Amino acid sequence: MTARPRVVIIGGGFAGLHAARALRRAPVDVVLIDRTNHHVFQPLLYQVANTSLAPSDIAAPIRWILRGQRNVTVLLGDVTGVDAASHTVLVAGEAPVPYDALIVATGSRHAYFGHEEWEAHAPGLKTLADALDMRQRMLLAFERAEWTSDEAERRALLTFVVVGGGPTGVELAGTLPEFARAALRPDFRRFDAGAARVVLIEGGPRLLAAFPEHVSARARRDLERLGVEVRTGVAVSAVSADGVTVAGELLAARTVFWAAGNAASPIGRMLDAPMDRAGRVLVGPDLAVPGHPEIFVAGDLAAIRWDDTRWVPGVAPAAMQMGRHAGRNAARQLQGALTRAFRYVNKGEMATIGRNRAVAVFGRRVALTGRPAWFFWLFVHIMYLVGFRNRLSVLLQWGYAYLTFQRGVRLLTPHDPARPAGGPA
Amino acid sequence: MTARPRVVIIGGGFAGLHAARALRRAPVDVVLIDRTNHHVFQPLLYQVANTSLAPSDIAAPIRWILRGQRNVTVLLGDVTGVDAASHTVLVAGEAPVPYDALIVATGSRHAYFGHEEWEAHAPGLKTLADALDMRQRMLLAFERAEWTSDEAERRALLTFVVVGGGPTGVELAGTLPEFARAALRPDFRRFDAGAARVVLIEGGPRLLAAFPEHVSARARRDLERLGVEVRTGVAVSAVSADGVTVAGELLAARTVFWAAGNAASPIGRMLDAPMDRAGRVLVGPDLAVPGHPEIFVAGDLAAIRWDDTRWVPGVAPAAMQMGRHAGRNAARQLQGALTRAFRYVNKGEMATIGRNRAVAVFGRRVALTGRPAWFFWLFVHIMYLVGFRNRLSVLLQWGYAYLTFQRGVRLLTPHDPARPAGGPA
Repeated sequence: MTARPRVVIIGGGFAGLHAARALRRAPVDVVLIDRTNHHVFQPLLYQVANTSLAPSDIAAPIRWILRGQRNVTVLLGDVTGVDAASHTVLVAGEAPVPYDALIVATGSRHAYFGHEEWEAHAPGLKTLADALDMRQRMLLAFERAEWTSDEAERRALLTFVVVGGGPTGVELAGTLPEFARAALRPDFRRFDAGAARVVLIEGGPRLLAAFPEHVSARARRDLERLGVEVRTGVAVSAVSADGVTVAGELLAARTVFWAAGNAASPIGRMLDAPMDRAGRVLVGPDLAVPGHPEIFVAGDLAAIRWDDTRWVPGVAPAAMQMGRHAGRNAARQLQGALTRAFRYVNKGEMATIGRNRAVAVFGRRVALTGRPAWFFWLFVHIMYLVGFRNRLSVLLQWGYAYLTFQRGVRLLTPHDPARPAGGPA
Repeated sequence: MTARPRVVIIGGGFAGLHAARALRRAPVDVVLIDRTNHHVFQPLLYQVANTSLAPSDIAAPIRWILRGQRNVTVLLGDVTGVDAASHTVLVAGEAPVPYDALIVATGSRHAYFGHEEWEAHAPGLKTLADALDMRQRMLLAFERAEWTSDEAERRALLTFVVVGGGPTGVELAGTLPEFARAALRPDFRRFDAGAARVVLIEGGPRLLAAFPEHVSARARRDLERLGVEVRTGVAVSAVSADGVTVAGELLAARTVFWAAGNAASPIGRMLDAPMDRAGRVLVGPDLAVPGHPEIFVAGDLAAIRWDDTRWVPGVAPAAMQMGRHAGRNAARQLQGALTRAFRYVNKGEMATIGRNRAVAVFGRRVALTGRPAWFFWLFVHIMYLVGFRNRLSVLLQWGYAYLTFQRGVRLLTPHDPARPAGGPA
């Protein structure tokens, strides 16, 4: 079509999107390929899972986000491989897509530490489809509890286990007890939905390991006050349709959520690059793949050091920074200029606990907890939703949910209720 | 549990919900069974299909709607049969549910006039799952057009055929051209989305056969001005993956929507009752099944005369009126009182055409067209959404869509984009 060099970006998450935006004034054509048609604001996925928000509140079509950037073409497609020798990306059912520079930003999936068979019973939370699957499992458990006359079965249906005490696990577990008590209790006639039991399991010695110790302790206290049973320092040895085996004992539960680990996207393996144990690509200081100066990796898929003791964490701000940097380095590389080394700027970390508590840390010194942290969390997330049409809608939904606990988004759709949805392919 | 007689209602649509509400002060226990967990505001389903609204804008959990009515228990279940002899309803995977009186309000599905194999290529619009399926097919056609380099294939991908010129067909077809022109055109780089072709096919001599002739003519003119090709008096003889064969000629199209006919829910057949050709149950004047004074049928599943020349139409107001009446008659029957005959009160009929035109008729005399009819349509629908949490949200979305054409609800989820969703089971 044109003689301008082409940058292909795989993935429309935070890293991919920011890479595309970084190239908006570069003399290149950009092709962004994603297997879904939408960008998801991942930090709020758990709010879709817990029925506080609708999918369209936290997601927008990638091509709509980038419609104003004329040098970008967005393609919906399932990338099956990268042929680094011939500089092409392979896409299921379509002609190969050639590139001059490539940015791989395909992120991560949850990891089961060699027990992939657990996934069927304990879905993780990375995509909108995951969130809708979690929502469906949770709502169906309550629906089934209204039918059963077997007390043990009802107890198992009303036991919800969250495995993993990082921010996602804490956020998921924190909203469940009050959801059951306030939103669901008036809707059921044959059992007390408020008696639902929520158990949060963490293998390490404390919750929120990336936060200072006193913040972890505060998070635990807040969760326990909300009615969450917190168990730390115990290992999960089995997950099945019957429940979770923890510290050698079966905890009967029909609904288990997994927030315990990440594994990099399998596309990393196709790059013939050095990887760490989690499958992340060990990139050079400029985010390029060793031996392939025209291929960059950004976001959760990239393993790069922050300082002597730490790696850059798999969080949204890091993905945005890496995406932007990879985009700029790709442009430099195509223009024959020197690429630059990536430097991570820590913006702090946050997690909400239930309806109006949160914890937040900035650098190594400043920490907020409780309600002030929650308001700060709210402010930051609403601000980050700039560019999405739904900032007002999200505010409205949150205000409504906060005031009334109505949770009108509790729809089981479009799956047949008799057949809970599997994870996405 | 209690000695009060039990009324079982099958179906949580307009008829079932209004039957339950009519029983709120009756000395009975009510059990409402539906195969989904939500009530859908069906007249706005086409707005979910065309991406103007999110599913949660027009649907709410049935148990949430009825939470305040303490004599109702809501159960999520797939009814597989009715045993009229033993007075029980059979539900897949659950114990049979006994009843003293039964109200069947399971509605209708689309009919293909003996060509059920057409359904795979031309889905209809009755449920949220249907609407999401339509949305997905439409959006995927545009996505695929961005990939293809074959001009004939691209033309077929950009040809959208709507079969059936009743209100649903007119509403669906009317919004497509402007959606393609205004919402999608800026998002694609390799073709002009505004060149999408929309064809509306009606076998009868005119659109909107239930409306006066001058209203039909106005609707046709309005649609043609929007860019819809309207073809009346032509028969569809085949529907396949290649397109629609109409008047003996293949119209190449990858996306076909069916709005041409209804068939009553198969549950009607289980009642051992007289039926009409469409499978509707020929009920007595009190909506009871002949020979079964304890079984009532309400809504689209019931066939009952309006006057000497007409049947009560399959529209939402008729379903609400029948549901209410069936509920009251069930209570009368259980108390040994005489049931009363149903009388349909016509509230008029409406259909929108594109973004700001509509037609509306009241009785045989009054008709509105154009923009006044559209504002009236808007007012009536917003008013009917009372009781849903989302009246404000719908207004906001419509306002936003009307002003900006952004259609942020354009998400392909949660299906794998490579595998278009089939219809619901």
